Amino acid sequence: MTHPIEHQRIYISGVGASHPKKCVLNEDLPLHLNTSDEWIQQRTGIKQRYIIDEGEDIVSIASEALLKALKMAGINPLDLDAIILATTTPAMRMPSTASLIQNIIGNYRCTAFDIQVACAGFVTAIQIAYGFIFSGQFSKIAVIGADLMSKIIDWNDRSTCVLFGDGAGAIIIENKMEAELVYNAQNLMNNIDIDNFSKNSFYEKNLTVDYTNYNINSLNNKIISFNSEKVQDLNEKKYLFDSSGNIPQSGNIIDLVSYSHADLKDILYANCDGFITMKGINVFKHAVQELTFISRLLVKRNNLDISDISWVIPHQANKRILDAIASNLDISIDKFVITVNKYANTSAASIPMALDFLYHNGDSFYKRLSSGDLIIMLGVGSGMIFNGILLRW
Amino acid sequence: MTHPIEHQRIYISGVGASHPKKCVLNEDLPLHLNTSDEWIQQRTGIKQRYIIDEGEDIVSIASEALLKALKMAGINPLDLDAIILATTTPAMRMPSTASLIQNIIGNYRCTAFDIQVACAGFVTAIQIAYGFIFSGQFSKIAVIGADLMSKIIDWNDRSTCVLFGDGAGAIIIENKMEAELVYNAQNLMNNIDIDNFSKNSFYEKNLTVDYTNYNINSLNNKIISFNSEKVQDLNEKKYLFDSSGNIPQSGNIIDLVSYSHADLKDILYANCDGFITMKGINVFKHAVQELTFISRLLVKRNNLDISDISWVIPHQANKRILDAIASNLDISIDKFVITVNKYANTSAASIPMALDFLYHNGDSFYKRLSSGDLIIMLGVGSGMIFNGILLRW
Repeated sequence: MTHPIEHQRIYISGVGASHPKKCVLNEDLPLHLNTSDEWIQQRTGIKQRYIIDEGEDIVSIASEALLKALKMAGINPLDLDAIILATTTPAMRMPSTASLIQNIIGNYRCTAFDIQVACAGFVTAIQIAYGFIFSGQFSKIAVIGADLMSKIIDWNDRSTCVLFGDGAGAIIIENKMEAELVYNAQNLMNNIDIDNFSKNSFYEKNLTVDYTNYNINSLNNKIISFNSEKVQDLNEKKYLFDSSGNIPQSGNIIDLVSYSHADLKDILYANCDGFITMKGINVFKHAVQELTFISRLLVKRNNLDISDISWVIPHQANKRILDAIASNLDISIDKFVITVNKYANTSAASIPMALDFLYHNGDSFYKRLSSGDLIIMLGVGSGMIFNGILLRW
Repeated sequence: MTHPIEHQRIYISGVGASHPKKCVLNEDLPLHLNTSDEWIQQRTGIKQRYIIDEGEDIVSIASEALLKALKMAGINPLDLDAIILATTTPAMRMPSTASLIQNIIGNYRCTAFDIQVACAGFVTAIQIAYGFIFSGQFSKIAVIGADLMSKIIDWNDRSTCVLFGDGAGAIIIENKMEAELVYNAQNLMNNIDIDNFSKNSFYEKNLTVDYTNYNINSLNNKIISFNSEKVQDLNEKKYLFDSSGNIPQSGNIIDLVSYSHADLKDILYANCDGFITMKGINVFKHAVQELTFISRLLVKRNNLDISDISWVIPHQANKRILDAIASNLDISIDKFVITVNKYANTSAASIPMALDFLYHNGDSFYKRLSSGDLIIMLGVGSGMIFNGILLRW
């Protein structure tokens, strides 16, 4: 089946990550936990985690990750159309933490909101961004995963508290085709007559009062009113691909899947004012089973072979889950990007932090990410929700 | 500009609402507030609100609203692809409250998550659902707004506590075209050979263990592997509209807009463990200004006149905000669906509750909603975020 996504050019243009300054090694954990570096490493692969300290909060680390991603993408914060933050540990009940980040980066025109999908939130946020771009609602979207898990773990429960850490990761998702369109639109707008609109506009009359720098024409990159001949020009350019007329071969989100087995809601949860409770064995079993399934599904329905996949970027909960998935899929664990040793489980931040590691910091163990590489991202979280994305870098 | 949405058939097929049993009249409010029915009605239009009581919670009222909407749409809960819940008052920190609702209605295959966009959440959830359907990720989506504002208001602060109430509303959004496609796909699947897939599938081998009723083929309505000739049939049907070949004239979501002025984050907020704080005059001013602007924008860029609009369904915060918007737009307040008198401000639930009132309960004051009616929905919430949707019923 020809997938509609082949006709789109929705791609990741920037990646950034951030973690708190304070690093807590297994050896540094409180003595009353009566655990050991060896025990933790053997069962989880975790060596250390970063924990939030004074002067830092979720907004500061998420904003830093986002600004790094914007820099890589070469995008001015003002040009973002939307900020989607996946988090289980928002700064406030309201507004959304995404709004607070929007304010920090100085954007005053995009939309911003949080989603709560636990550790699977980053993949869901990409799915939302994908839909927004595909349906023409927005062109440049920041997708952030950030969590301060240290705030919701019981530091007296050694079966959970050693597993989590704090961090943030961000990506920019764009539609190149749309970006070209907008560029053309911006040129056209120099000649646009919006007088007729302005005369009747309560908003326009009040424009100088509140938003001196506000550009009404840039709102959602939509154009309010213009000459129909010029619209024609715009429509003709709408379905062009690149200058050669080819479908681009890189940077494409190819396929997405997400489902939830809500009957598993009791194996991993936290009450509003409580700590995380987890039935580790059950979470392990279902994570391995479903993430293996999703990997096979993404490969199979896109007529690929599992050997075509260059990188698997899974949620980082436990190294042994990843070993089991690699074994099931019969591919080398070396294709799995692993950062759980450095960061522990940072919930919604773990996948973008792992992507950032692969892209920016890949050490001798990893060859660096190459253009054209096929990547599978795999999310799993309380719900239980399972999701995945296939993309070509 | 020809809007891409004209080529889609994304529509609302079901509407439902629910509120707690206990009704609290202005006269019933605690004496220590030192307020009066007359004072509250004059300044807000509110006469009463419903407040959660023992045996009820956000999951119970949201599930009831959703089941009513599913019944109207004629959809089995099992056939939902996604549940998106907008809420500021989730039942738990994790899993999402949407997962808990998924469990209550007995769906074991869809995806489910919460979004936090304060009082503007319902419109944002529609925007997400629209993108999901447009991009082919899902076909049948439940969009719910539910909030228990009584849990996060200070019952000693008469400037805020009289304004809010508890409630839930839900709609079903579908793509008829896609639904026909899926029907064809289901027929085809009877002849599909998935043996080759099954042999290698860890998931399939474990199928009987966990999900006896789980139908692997129905996952996200995607088909894993089948005969290429049949695929051809499917593709040919893909871009058909209805049996007459016409673009349908009813039930379409036509246009969507959303933006946030994060510099206004301090005029309406609540800390994680705190109560709502609001600078009423500022909220009033910006809500009137931006919702007037959005109404004009939606009308203008779709080549309509404001007089073409049959119904405005705004967020229900304060009757005087709605009077001011009607005055700015120079249309009768009778076109505004008003339920703030009955329910007070139910945050993310207010718009679907108002739509439900218009559709199911419209009294002599309102003629009932007619097929073909143009509707504008207007959202505003802490952030400050402003959004709107134009649709034809």
